Amino acid sequence: MYFQTLTQMKKMLLQLDKWLEAGAAHAHSKSFDQNLFLGFRLAPDQFAFLKQVQVACDTAKLMASRLTGKEAPKNADDEQSLEALRARVHSTVAYLETFSAHDFDAAATRVISQPRWEGKTMTGADFFLEHAVPNFFFHITHIYAILRHNGVAIGKRDYLGALTMKAP
Amino acid sequence: MYFQTLTQMKKMLLQLDKWLEAGAAHAHSKSFDQNLFLGFRLAPDQFAFLKQVQVACDTAKLMASRLTGKEAPKNADDEQSLEALRARVHSTVAYLETFSAHDFDAAATRVISQPRWEGKTMTGADFFLEHAVPNFFFHITHIYAILRHNGVAIGKRDYLGALTMKAP
Repeated sequence: MYFQTLTQMKKMLLQLDKWLEAGAAHAHSKSFDQNLFLGFRLAPDQFAFLKQVQVACDTAKLMASRLTGKEAPKNADDEQSLEALRARVHSTVAYLETFSAHDFDAAATRVISQPRWEGKTMTGADFFLEHAVPNFFFHITHIYAILRHNGVAIGKRDYLGALTMKAP
Repeated sequence: MYFQTLTQMKKMLLQLDKWLEAGAAHAHSKSFDQNLFLGFRLAPDQFAFLKQVQVACDTAKLMASRLTGKEAPKNADDEQSLEALRARVHSTVAYLETFSAHDFDAAATRVISQPRWEGKTMTGADFFLEHAVPNFFFHITHIYAILRHNGVAIGKRDYLGALTMKAP
């Protein structure tokens, strides 16, 4: 399930790329600077749009890295435009594509920690379910919500992307 | 993973209950009617708060029901207060508690459909990954975001709830 979930995250990051494209088109049609989106936020003490995109990307990247024990590429977090954020999304997707199902064979029992946890640890299974997945969807949904709140014409189908359906 | 994810959804619905409680406390401290929250939304063509809560509950309920082949209780969707929404959350959690891991043994290969899909179907595995999980987090994050946007003092820890951590 770890690898399948990573595949779903990759799919949603590619949807996110389309939302960013729709944001740029909306800015163009309303004659405002598309990079204004980077500073938008839903509450003064929430992350702005820029950071929401960076953290959504990093949540997927670090989930893959931590559950497999592979080193993750570092990001400078120096994006200053919607175009640069789209490049960040693409580079994250390219990183996720380097993994195979086999890489996650020992994921459930890995010992996961982060500097801010001050030595505390989670098992890979708990980290995945309680931390990585809820956080990924938290940030990606905030990105979507900030765009919708500012008039960008995206909808639930753009959120979910194409579904694997069988015709009757 | 189906049952563990359902357990995580149950945990997040119990967190949602705390957000609703915080919303009521915020309304009280600012002297406005707490039921005003039910009509709040982030964009005019998005679901209002009331419907976001109903759909979040139903997404968890129907995921459990469809992946196990068990009949789900029907809800009248007639909530008109924050208190009634909290009762809806509690009844959903009570329903989710009737399931065990064994109920999901055949989940991956079940054939899932909905009236609006016009005869098309998904496998249980695809429905879970591509539809149920992304939708659940979509709605629960919108609920959180609407509360934050309106000044309710909740944060990321209230979103995630307690994490299963081991001391160093």
